Amino acid sequence: MCQGQTARHSFASRAQDFVSGETSPSVLLEQHLQSIADNERRVRAFVHLNVARAREEAARSTERWRRGGNLSPLDGMVVAAKDIIETADMPTGQGSPMWTDFHTRRDAASIQALREAGAIILGKTTTTEFATTELLASTTNPNDPARTPGGSSSGSAAAVGAGFAPIALGSQVVGSTIRPSSYCGCVGFKPTFGALNRSGTYDHLSHSCMGIIGTHLDDVWLTAKAIATRVGGDPGHPGLTGPDTLPGAVAPRRLVMLETDGWRKASPAARSALEGQAALLRRQGVEIVRRADDPAVEAFERLLAEDLLDLSWQIMAWEFRWPLGGYASSRASQLSRAMLQRLQQGAAMTQQDYAAALARRSALRSAFHELMASFDGAITLAATSAAPLGFANTGHAGFNVPASLLGAPALSLPVLRDEGLPLGLQVIGHAGGDARLFATAGGILAAH
Amino acid sequence: MCQGQTARHSFASRAQDFVSGETSPSVLLEQHLQSIADNERRVRAFVHLNVARAREEAARSTERWRRGGNLSPLDGMVVAAKDIIETADMPTGQGSPMWTDFHTRRDAASIQALREAGAIILGKTTTTEFATTELLASTTNPNDPARTPGGSSSGSAAAVGAGFAPIALGSQVVGSTIRPSSYCGCVGFKPTFGALNRSGTYDHLSHSCMGIIGTHLDDVWLTAKAIATRVGGDPGHPGLTGPDTLPGAVAPRRLVMLETDGWRKASPAARSALEGQAALLRRQGVEIVRRADDPAVEAFERLLAEDLLDLSWQIMAWEFRWPLGGYASSRASQLSRAMLQRLQQGAAMTQQDYAAALARRSALRSAFHELMASFDGAITLAATSAAPLGFANTGHAGFNVPASLLGAPALSLPVLRDEGLPLGLQVIGHAGGDARLFATAGGILAAH
Repeated sequence: MCQGQTARHSFASRAQDFVSGETSPSVLLEQHLQSIADNERRVRAFVHLNVARAREEAARSTERWRRGGNLSPLDGMVVAAKDIIETADMPTGQGSPMWTDFHTRRDAASIQALREAGAIILGKTTTTEFATTELLASTTNPNDPARTPGGSSSGSAAAVGAGFAPIALGSQVVGSTIRPSSYCGCVGFKPTFGALNRSGTYDHLSHSCMGIIGTHLDDVWLTAKAIATRVGGDPGHPGLTGPDTLPGAVAPRRLVMLETDGWRKASPAARSALEGQAALLRRQGVEIVRRADDPAVEAFERLLAEDLLDLSWQIMAWEFRWPLGGYASSRASQLSRAMLQRLQQGAAMTQQDYAAALARRSALRSAFHELMASFDGAITLAATSAAPLGFANTGHAGFNVPASLLGAPALSLPVLRDEGLPLGLQVIGHAGGDARLFATAGGILAAH
Repeated sequence: MCQGQTARHSFASRAQDFVSGETSPSVLLEQHLQSIADNERRVRAFVHLNVARAREEAARSTERWRRGGNLSPLDGMVVAAKDIIETADMPTGQGSPMWTDFHTRRDAASIQALREAGAIILGKTTTTEFATTELLASTTNPNDPARTPGGSSSGSAAAVGAGFAPIALGSQVVGSTIRPSSYCGCVGFKPTFGALNRSGTYDHLSHSCMGIIGTHLDDVWLTAKAIATRVGGDPGHPGLTGPDTLPGAVAPRRLVMLETDGWRKASPAARSALEGQAALLRRQGVEIVRRADDPAVEAFERLLAEDLLDLSWQIMAWEFRWPLGGYASSRASQLSRAMLQRLQQGAAMTQQDYAAALARRSALRSAFHELMASFDGAITLAATSAAPLGFANTGHAGFNVPASLLGAPALSLPVLRDEGLPLGLQVIGHAGGDARLFATAGGILAAH
C-alpha cells in the first residue's frame, strides 16, 4: 500500500521467511539502505544515520531468527525516529539550529522499548522547529519533490513513504502524524492521549502523543504494542492494551462522518474521494451518519467548527512559555519568526486564560464521548487535499485538530487519491479504544 | 525560624531596605557566600556553584531596587536548585556518576521563571541518585554533621538550613521535600500535584512535584507564585493560584490529626511533640479530630495504614522501567544496587499491575477528598523523629507518602523539637487548595 521497494510485505508477515532464511533482517536492511542511496538526495528525510550499528544489529537479529531466538515479532525491523526523540547513539536536534549536535546520553522510552524488542534504530528524521510549524530542513515529498511531505513529523513520513524504513516514530499535537502520513501515502497512527510513553522526547505539550507511521497496519500495531508492554503509557496512564497481534478486522456497523473545520478547506476532489469512500461503505451495509441525518451530530459539528485550531494554539502558546521564554532571552536570533510570535501569544495570556482553554477542551472531550457511544468510529479525511505544492507551510490541519484535542485515537489509511497522489482516510476511535480502532480500520480496508 | 545567619528576616520582608539601600541583594549574597565559606566544607550541600554570575546578577538587582525598577518581590533573592533541575549555565548530574558534567543547554521551567523574576540561581544541590533512595554524595545535616539531612532533596534542605540560601528548589514523589525540611529545620512545601511546572527536570514520575524549601513562609509562597504566574503548572494543569503576597493567616477551626503509617514508627518524643502541638491548638479553640473521635477518620486511617509505601514503590517501579532499562543494558555498573533492585521490581510487573496500582491511588484520592470536606486541613508529623544519626538511609517516609500519593499540598513547619533538634509539623491541605493551606499554616504559626 506504500511506495517503497519493501512495501509489498509487512515486516511482521516475514517471520517464517526469517526463520527459514528465505530473507533476513540483514537483507531487508540492505534494501532500505539501497533506497536511501537512490533517493535520499532528493527526499532528504534524515538528519542522522547510524549505518554501522544498524548492520551489526541486523546481523545479530538475522542470527537470532535462524536459531529460533528472536526477541519479538519486530526483531530486526528498521525504525527511523523523529529528531525530537532522544537516542543515546545519535544527536537530537529538535529541528532547531539551537540544538545542533546535542547528545542527550539516553534513549527515549519508545527507543528503549523498541531496542529491547530487537528493532534497529537506523536514523533520525527531520522535524519542523520544535515539532511545530517551521520546516527549516529541506525534506520533500517522496511522491513529488515539488511538494511538502507535511509536518511536523516530516522526515518520518517521507522516510516511510520512500521505503527507507517500514516504521518511523513521530509525534502529534495538532496534525503532525496523520497529515504527513496522508501526504506520503503511509499508515499513520496517533494513539489515545497518554497511551504510548513519550518520556525522553522534547515533547512536553499537554495533549501531544507519540505517533507511529508505517507501510502496513500490522507493523504499526505491533510497534505500538512493543512500546506499551515494555514502557507503558505516559506516566500515570496504564497505556495501550489489546491483542499481541493485529486485532482482527471487524466491519463497522455504524460510523459518523464528520466534516470538522477541514471540510470547507478541502479540495473538491478530496471531498469527492471521501464521498466515494462513504458510498463504498454504504454499499457494504455500513450505516454512515452525517450532520444532516442526526441532530446530535449536527450539534457536535458546530462545536468542531468553532475555533478549534485557535483553541489548540492557545493551549500550546501558554505551554510554550517554557522553554521559549528562556531561549528568547539568550538566543532569540536562533528562533524563527513563527516561534517568536508563539511566544508573544503565550506572554499575553494569563493562567486564567489557560484554565479556560483547558475547560473548553475538557467539555469537548465529554461531548465526543457522548456522541461516540452510538458509533463504531468516526471517519473524515486525513488532510484537505493531496500534499500541497511548495514548502511555504506543511499543509492545513483542519481535519487533524479534533482527534488531537479530544485525546482520541486516529489512523490515517492510504486508500484515497487526490491529484493522482495519496490521500488518507482518517478513522477516529473512542478514547482508550485503540485496539478497537485497529479492528475497525481492518474492516474498512477489507472493503477495498 | 531557621539556623542560618540570614534567617531573621525573610527576603520578601526586606523590600523597603533594598529601596532605601539599608541592605541590598549584593550584601545578602555576600552573607550567604560567607556562610558557604564557613560551613560548606562540613555540610557539602552543593555540587556546583556559579559565584561569578551570582555576583553580577546581584549587582544588577541591587541597582534595579535602588532606582525602583525591581522585576518582582524576589528580585535578587538567592536560590539553590536540586541537581535534577536543568540549568543552562551549570551541569545537571542527577546524583548519579552516569551524568557527571552533563550540560542540558537549557533552564527548567522553574529556573526560567525565577530568573525572569530577578532571582539569582547560585548553585546546584546534592540529590540522591535519580532523586530516589541512595545518597551517593556526602551531605550532612547542618545542625549535626553526624546526621543525615534527609533526602532526596538533601542538598536543598541542607543549604537552606545552613543559611546558604533563603530558598532552594527540590522535588517530592514520596517524602523528598517534606522530610529533609523537617530534619534541617526549614519550611518545606510540596504543592498540589501539577500545581508548579516541573518541565525541564529529570523527574518523570506520575505524582512527583516540584518542591520549595525556605527559611520563611512568605518567601516560599512568593517563589511558588513566581513560578506559577510565569510558567504555570505541569502541562495540562492550570497551576497554583492565590494572592500575590502570602495569604493572610486564618486560624483553623477544625483539623484532622492523622496517624498514617508514620505513627507506629515515630519516636516517643516526636509523638509527644505532636500531642503537645495538638494540645496547644485545642487551647486556642481549634477542634482536633482523631481516629478515636470519628468513624470516618478511623476508616481513612485504615486505608493509610495498609501498604501505601509499597503502593508508592510499585507505581515508581513501573515508571522507572524507563530509563533504568536502558541504563542497565549499557551502563549497569554505574547504577546502585538499590536502582537495580527497583528495575527488577518493575520488570516483574505488567501493565495490568500498574493499572491496578493507579486505580488504588485514584480511590485513595476520592476518599481523602470526601474526608477533607469537613476539615480545614490535616496535621501529622513531617518525619518520624529528628534527623537520624548516620547516613545509611535518608529516614523513614511513613508520614510523607500519603500527601504525595493523594496529590494534596503539604507544608512542613519547623515548630517542633526532638532530641534538641528540629522536627517539622506537617500540615496537609485540600487538593488545589494551596493558598488555603498557607493561610491555615499562618494560623497555626500564629498560635506559637
